[in-house]
Order: sequence, then C-alpha cells, then structure tokens
Amino acid sequence: MAKRHKTDSRPTIAEIAQIAGVSIPTVSKVLNGRTDVAQQTRERVERVIEEYGFVRNRAARALRKGKTGLVDLVLPRLDDEYFLPILEGASQVVREAGMRLVLTSTHYHSEEDAQWINDATDRSIDGILLVLPTEEAIERLEQAGRPFVLIHNQGGLLNMAPSVRITSWEGGFVATQHLLNLGHRRIAYIGKTSPTRDAIERIAGYRAALDAAHLPIDPQLECAGEFNEIDGYHATRALLQLAEPPTAIFAGNDHQAAGVYRALHELGITVPDEMSVIGFDNLPYTAIMNPPLTTIHAPRLELGRAAAAILVSLINEKPPETARVVLPTHLVERQSCRPLAQQAHRP
Amino acid sequence: MAKRHKTDSRPTIAEIAQIAGVSIPTVSKVLNGRTDVAQQTRERVERVIEEYGFVRNRAARALRKGKTGLVDLVLPRLDDEYFLPILEGASQVVREAGMRLVLTSTHYHSEEDAQWINDATDRSIDGILLVLPTEEAIERLEQAGRPFVLIHNQGGLLNMAPSVRITSWEGGFVATQHLLNLGHRRIAYIGKTSPTRDAIERIAGYRAALDAAHLPIDPQLECAGEFNEIDGYHATRALLQLAEPPTAIFAGNDHQAAGVYRALHELGITVPDEMSVIGFDNLPYTAIMNPPLTTIHAPRLELGRAAAAILVSLINEKPPETARVVLPTHLVERQSCRPLAQQAHRP
Repeated sequence: MAKRHKTDSRPTIAEIAQIAGVSIPTVSKVLNGRTDVAQQTRERVERVIEEYGFVRNRAARALRKGKTGLVDLVLPRLDDEYFLPILEGASQVVREAGMRLVLTSTHYHSEEDAQWINDATDRSIDGILLVLPTEEAIERLEQAGRPFVLIHNQGGLLNMAPSVRITSWEGGFVATQHLLNLGHRRIAYIGKTSPTRDAIERIAGYRAALDAAHLPIDPQLECAGEFNEIDGYHATRALLQLAEPPTAIFAGNDHQAAGVYRALHELGITVPDEMSVIGFDNLPYTAIMNPPLTTIHAPRLELGRAAAAILVSLINEKPPETARVVLPTHLVERQSCRPLAQQAHRP
Repeated sequence: MAKRHKTDSRPTIAEIAQIAGVSIPTVSKVLNGRTDVAQQTRERVERVIEEYGFVRNRAARALRKGKTGLVDLVLPRLDDEYFLPILEGASQVVREAGMRLVLTSTHYHSEEDAQWINDATDRSIDGILLVLPTEEAIERLEQAGRPFVLIHNQGGLLNMAPSVRITSWEGGFVATQHLLNLGHRRIAYIGKTSPTRDAIERIAGYRAALDAAHLPIDPQLECAGEFNEIDGYHATRALLQLAEPPTAIFAGNDHQAAGVYRALHELGITVPDEMSVIGFDNLPYTAIMNPPLTTIHAPRLELGRAAAAILVSLINEKPPETARVVLPTHLVERQSCRPLAQQAHRP
C-alpha cells in the first residue's frame, strides 16, 4: 500500500491498459484472476496496478476528473434500420476510447430535448452525438458549451459546428447520370417535399445532371414524398398516370424504392424490363429485393465512426485539424436498371 | 436557503417531477425559465425545488446514492435490424424511469465481456439487460450480484434468472399447422443447426405439428442453417434437388425466408403459385417482399419494454411478482402461402 499514490490520481482500467501497453480485456482478465493471460503480461499489469493503484468505481472517478466517461448519442427515432450502422460505428469508437455510449431517442418530441440538453449542461455526460439535429437543438447545445458533433446536419450551410455528413448532392448527380448513360431521358425523382438537407441536395444533384445533359426539368417528374415506403408507392402510382410516364425512377431513398417496386408490381410493370429504378442508401435488404436494387451507398458505419472520433478528440481537448467531415457516396450497380434501348416500350 | 435539506437528500429532476406531480419535461422547462408552462404548474414546481433543493450533477448524486442512473443494454451485435425495436422498447422504459441506457455491442467476443461485466461488478452501472447471453456471461453476472435481466435467454430451462423471451415453440407449431391446414404434407424446415434456444424451440414446434397431424418426420426436409439469408438460399437450392421436393418451406427466421425467395426466383419457381413460404419474426421488410411474406410476429418492442420494466423494479428493490416473462407470438397472414390444391404441380 505504501507505494500507492494519493486517491485522486488512481487510474481506470483503460489507463492501466495504456500504461502497461496491453489491451483493456487483458487488464480485466488479470483483475478477475483469470488464467488465460501470459505470465509475463500478468506481471507487467500487476506492477502497474501496484504502482498506481486502481479505481473500480467510475462514479467516484468521474466526480474527481469532472468527467463521466459517457457520450450521448441522440437520435430522432429508433425504428429505422438506417440508423443501426451509425450506432455501431459510434459504439466502436467510443468503446475504443474507454468511454460508454448512452442512447437517447427523442421521437421528434422537442419537449424531450430538454432532458438530454440538460444532461449536457449539467455535465452528467462528456459530449453529444446528435443525429439529424433541429436548428433549435443546435442553438441550445452551443449555449450549453459542451462538446458535440452533428451527424447529417440539416442546419444552414454557414454553420461551423463540428459535423459529419455524406455527399448527397454528388450521390443524386451520379444516380441520375447513371440513368442518363443508359439512354433514359424521362427520369423521375421522388422525395421533393422532404425538408432534410440530404433531400434538398439529392434533388439538386438530379437537376444538375439533367442540366449537364441539356435536358429540361419537367416538374411533373419531380414527385412529392418523405423518405418512406408509402410515399414511394403513391408517387409511382401518380407517375404511371401521366400522359408520358417516365422510363426510369430515381427514388430519394431505399424505403421509397421499395414502395416503387410495390406499385410497379401491382400494375404488372416489370423491373428493369419495363422500368429502371435506382435508390439511395444501400440498406441491407436492397441486395435481396427482386430484382436486387441499384442504389447509392451511404457510408453509415463510417458516419458513426468519424463523428465519434471527432467528439472523443474534442472531449480530450485535442481538437482535430478539421471538425467538419463529408464522406463520399458511391454507386452500387445491381439489376434494377437497364439501357433504354433494351426496355420494352409501353403503350 | 434555510429551508433546504442537507445535501444528501436533494432530489433529481425525476424526483422533483414525481413530488410535484408533473412530467420531467415540465420540470426542465421551469428550470430553464421557459414560458410555455402554466403559472400554477410553475409555482408548484418552484415550491418543490425550494423545499427540497435540486441536484444538477448526476455524478455527484450517483456517488451519494450508490446509484449511477445507468442501465447497460448488452447485445451480441448491432448489424441486425432484429434488435432495433428491443433497443427502442428498453430505451422508452428506462427513460420513463428517469434513467439512461448505455449501449454495448460485444460482437460475440467473449474477451469483451470482461469490460461490461466489470462495470456491473464495480457498480458503475445499476443493472444490465443482456440479449442472447452465453452461459458464461450469466454465471459471471450471478457472481457479480447486480440486477440483470436476460432477453432471449438461451440458457438451461432450469435457470431461474430474470428473463424475457417469446413463445418460439408455439410459433413453430402455428407456422407448421398453418401450412398443414392448407393441405401441405411435404413441409421443409430451415434452421436446424442454429444453437440458439429459439431455434431449438422452433424445430420442436415444427415436429410436434407434423406429429399431431400423424405425419412422419423426414430428415431430408430438416435443413441445416443459421438465421441468415445465405443459409436460407443454400437450403432451398438443396431442397429443390430432392427426388420429392417439399411443397412448402418454413424458414426459421425472415432473413432465411429472403434467401428462400432468392433461390426460388433464380430457379423460376413462383411464390405462392408453386411453393408456399412462411417466415418468423415479422421484420418490417417482410411486408414489402414480393409477394408479402406470411410470417410469425415476434413482439420485439414488448421484449425490450418488459425486460427493462423488470430491471427497473429490481434496481428499485421492488422485485416484480414474476421475473420470468414469456411473450406470445402470432401468425401474420400475407400472400406467400396458398392451399396445396391450388398450387401448380411441378414435374
């Protein structure tokens, strides 16, 4: 006991692991008296513990350090698998940093914002990852003065807050260009009415690709729709009522594309023989749709990892060189698009 | 200040809300000086705060109470949307109890078990929700002596640990009986080799339904397979090679059913005209499969809610009357099964 430093400097498991140059699980094994640790490693870990002591209770430690080891991931909802890899990526990085991830779903209720923003303000968490934040939430976080990183920031383009997002404009451009390269000229877009920044960028990319190909914008081919299956379904039913229907449909996200498939199936229109379809996000089920969906890959795991990495740096007061990251999307070509020349002509 | 009690008894926001008989967001609004609170309500909340004081810092409070307000949800993986409603349900109940949900993904690495079990042991969390636990994890948690609840317990039937699971045996029975009622006699099951308790129950339910209909068990119709798409695909390819293929396939879960669809589509066999298919879980995408999949609904949101409710009771030292809950499954009939008499005969 004589060798022990005063209480305030005793390290956590993570710090012991770092000092001893071993992994956290290895320190755990030694502490738990497990036998599956090399003798040399065990002795090194035990020397570090003997030298520095060891704090078991995180709450005690948090109070001394002014840190809690907790990072809050705040999502608008938890019923959309889109968010899962973001969770996974953030969880990986937070764990690697020896911290823990708290999960908060706001269900879009702004009243509930209060609680998690209070948690930030009263320092019961070290930082916040905020997915699809509202302007109000960003403002209140800025006032709270705690580290935060925005994921899919919908805010103004001039906002300099730390954020990670994807190239939605480029994705929209590439998706449309892919259809243009296949000879399509009447290409519909679904998702016009979603107010998210990603939706705004996607339709802008669509329009820019048409413009680059010297094609006019036809307002009839720009369909209303939120990013869900039912709006994809209704938009497609409406498109097929047009005097001159499209030969290809670019759905703003994969959920919509599933609705497009359902409407086309009901109408007896086959994909891609009679209609080309492209989606956005590359959700797992798109690979097993019938036919497998061509779509734009959104790097969701990387979104979660990148945002968490920036947040950990901010918490440790080592701000990264750049705290505003944009991750690239790319085309995943499957079997839902074909050259217009090979598509059957519909009456 | 004179009225304030000694530091150790100052309440949290949740407790103030309870004492004042208002919601947590309402207390938050009063604390944040917002104007959208009725005057009478504001005064009641302010009286309670004046009377009892108020603790902003959770870490300080945790140390005094010996509680941290944190519940850990430990999952084997975060890349399967099956788990999402469980997360959501647990998150709802934990929030309603004024606590926070920490998320831990073990990636099936038993080494990583160490860290979250240590968190339980060193009292830096108040309790654990453990999804698909291993025997080893259960044993270590029992030794740690902290509150925990198992979700989809795979352990021995004699284990008396608090747990929430679903009627997988009954689901397997009902799925098979549905196909029998449609006149099918050669019914295949996929999922024989999954070691999970749910898989064991499902095949047992399948066999019991066949037995009740006085039909023999044909080992050729019981296919190997883990609960994923690719195993459903391979099992189906193998089934179609049989001298006498099945007329209906019961996939152990929906991911497998997606693989069944893919294999059948490649072979030009239509569902349900030439093959009836039934799944298990009722994942969202099954409603938009082509044709929409008949499946057994697994109450995943309720799994998360029920488990969290038991855990909260245990943490508050008010053990529920029963801490071992089994939630019922039910048949969701869509368009992937039809009477054998109406199915086309294959050569």
